[in-house]
Amino acid sequence: MKLTEQQRASELAPLLAAGWVMVKGRDAIVKTFTFQDFIQAWGWMSRVALQSEKNDHHPEWNNVYNRVEVTWSTHDCGGLSLKDVKLATFCDQAYAKN
Amino acid sequence: MKLTEQQRASELAPLLAAGWVMVKGRDAIVKTFTFQDFIQAWGWMSRVALQSEKNDHHPEWNNVYNRVEVTWSTHDCGGLSLKDVKLATFCDQAYAKN
Repeated sequence: MKLTEQQRASELAPLLAAGWVMVKGRDAIVKTFTFQDFIQAWGWMSRVALQSEKNDHHPEWNNVYNRVEVTWSTHDCGGLSLKDVKLATFCDQAYAKN
Repeated sequence: MKLTEQQRASELAPLLAAGWVMVKGRDAIVKTFTFQDFIQAWGWMSRVALQSEKNDHHPEWNNVYNRVEVTWSTHDCGGLSLKDVKLATFCDQAYAKN
């Protein structure tokens, strides 16, 4: 289910304040994470991959060496859902521990 | 070192025959691999990631659930090198074993 206006204020706003950006023309958020090298980037991606599979909710992502651009949106509802909020938050938390 | 014309005929041509495509406006090749699900896609990506790190040559790649689009090019020489041929071939071999 798509985020309500209230949920956007309470759940999405903190992510936008933390560097996530609305994708132009889509109800989706994107953020680029930068690492020391490929090993660090891949380690982080692996954690996000396992968490995604566990939640049955997967990112659109692009990796070039030490950079990973991650987009979250929910296909089923055609926009942002609480699943995206959950996984985007996981991305930030895993990055903070990196 | 960029591929010579002779190397393009002997090394690159087989990859182009196997589904790799020249990227428009770049001396780079791209191919999309499709899997049964995310687990299969991630398993394949993990093998490519380890091989990339071992060869110190990394792809540009994009993953959405069961699809992975991989681009190979060599930054140092500004175009395709034998490293790209080697890793693109590895991608195909690992996919065949999938």
